[in-house]
Amino acid sequence: MDFKNKLENAQKKNNSLVCVGLDPDPENLRGAKDQFEFNKKVVDETAEFICCYKPQIAFYGAAGIKGFEDLKKTIDYIHKNYPKIPVLLDGKRADVGHTSEMYAQEVFDFYDADAVTVIPYCGFDSIKPFFQRSDRGVFVICRTSNQGASDFQDLLVGNEPLYLKVAQKIIDWNKRYPNVFLEIGATWPEEIGSLRKLAFSMPFLIAGIGAQGGDLEGTLNNGLTKDKKGLIISSSRGIIYAQNPKEAAQKLRDEINKYRN
Amino acid sequence: MDFKNKLENAQKKNNSLVCVGLDPDPENLRGAKDQFEFNKKVVDETAEFICCYKPQIAFYGAAGIKGFEDLKKTIDYIHKNYPKIPVLLDGKRADVGHTSEMYAQEVFDFYDADAVTVIPYCGFDSIKPFFQRSDRGVFVICRTSNQGASDFQDLLVGNEPLYLKVAQKIIDWNKRYPNVFLEIGATWPEEIGSLRKLAFSMPFLIAGIGAQGGDLEGTLNNGLTKDKKGLIISSSRGIIYAQNPKEAAQKLRDEINKYRN
Repeated sequence: MDFKNKLENAQKKNNSLVCVGLDPDPENLRGAKDQFEFNKKVVDETAEFICCYKPQIAFYGAAGIKGFEDLKKTIDYIHKNYPKIPVLLDGKRADVGHTSEMYAQEVFDFYDADAVTVIPYCGFDSIKPFFQRSDRGVFVICRTSNQGASDFQDLLVGNEPLYLKVAQKIIDWNKRYPNVFLEIGATWPEEIGSLRKLAFSMPFLIAGIGAQGGDLEGTLNNGLTKDKKGLIISSSRGIIYAQNPKEAAQKLRDEINKYRN
Repeated sequence: MDFKNKLENAQKKNNSLVCVGLDPDPENLRGAKDQFEFNKKVVDETAEFICCYKPQIAFYGAAGIKGFEDLKKTIDYIHKNYPKIPVLLDGKRADVGHTSEMYAQEVFDFYDADAVTVIPYCGFDSIKPFFQRSDRGVFVICRTSNQGASDFQDLLVGNEPLYLKVAQKIIDWNKRYPNVFLEIGATWPEEIGSLRKLAFSMPFLIAGIGAQGGDLEGTLNNGLTKDKKGLIISSSRGIIYAQNPKEAAQKLRDEINKYRN
């Protein structure tokens, strides 16, 4: 089964658009003995309320070899115990062609992620090796949630901001590679609306809900597809560091679902 | 000693602008038992002719945990045996602020690289955590060597291509963070000339000489500073997979130095 089907099945089964960002700060593991044990607890508590797990690879790299081992163990654990829930590895990878092929091997063959995030700046051939893995998903970042995103992403190319030019390319690429989707920050609900008008059924990965101050209501009003799907709404610190991750995941799911009825 | 001084001392001592890209394909190790042993041989043969080593992290990630261990061992080996030669870890890292801090820990604290490459698409705050490590170097990619680079980097913002807007920002950042430099592909000698006019003394990392078809003569004619420095010219496959890496490194050094006299 390809990534998109796996995702949509998980969204349906758990009636949820919530994605949990598994980003455990190695300096803040709340008593867990390592990042894997931290993640295992979060996964076991949240698996029935969410549609996707999204570990950010940098949080593991910061812990060196032990971190990479814990990331691999985490992904293996999810595949084994929750085989219907996809794992999206947030790696923001990209480089010139030959090197991106190596990144694709890292992400899809070694870590066995179902999907990945990539950066578009170097153009089509720099991310094509990911696109070619037709059973895996590729989310190209478009408009990120941080303030500095405007430094380049908002520069006007003709009458349109750069991020819309990027979005148009992503939509083009999606015609040839239906496993290519886009990522946008929840801090930009108007921009999410602009993109939804261009890509009326494409899954969008929405980052920045919670600690980064994203706008959930605006995101949903502007981003949902006509059939009230099409979004993967990621929250990390708001769930994994909640007093009760299970309740936090359920609460976010239910809050989102109010806009889907 | 900070990265820039370390680099310039190595350039002077070995009379060389050559950087060796340590990118061993895990499927093509020419009889070496692992990536570390492959690199060790290349490093021992080339260290007197070059000014920098640049491992590309993707080539190690493709080999999983063993690859990460071999990358760490390679960097430790260079620091111990050739302490005057800096290591630039080519990771093309970047993400929103909090995550980039984790990448900075991976690259500078765990791997102990002297410098890193980053992608500018997400703006200043997404790469500031790297800039703040004032003893380390940060190369922001600007105009890459691949064909697809033109998809976005050449889009006109006003009258200027995006990559020049990026270059202007890099030059601004360099005023506050003198450890910030830029990277450009050797396939674009005219663009290198445009950038040299904007940043007359900044070190540029030049990628794509050799297998990627970069233009060495054009790069040097357009990119050298007035005092015939300012470039770090990276070659990977052309040296590490040469019949005789020592001769290949020496030959490239000497060829470059013809333009420096």
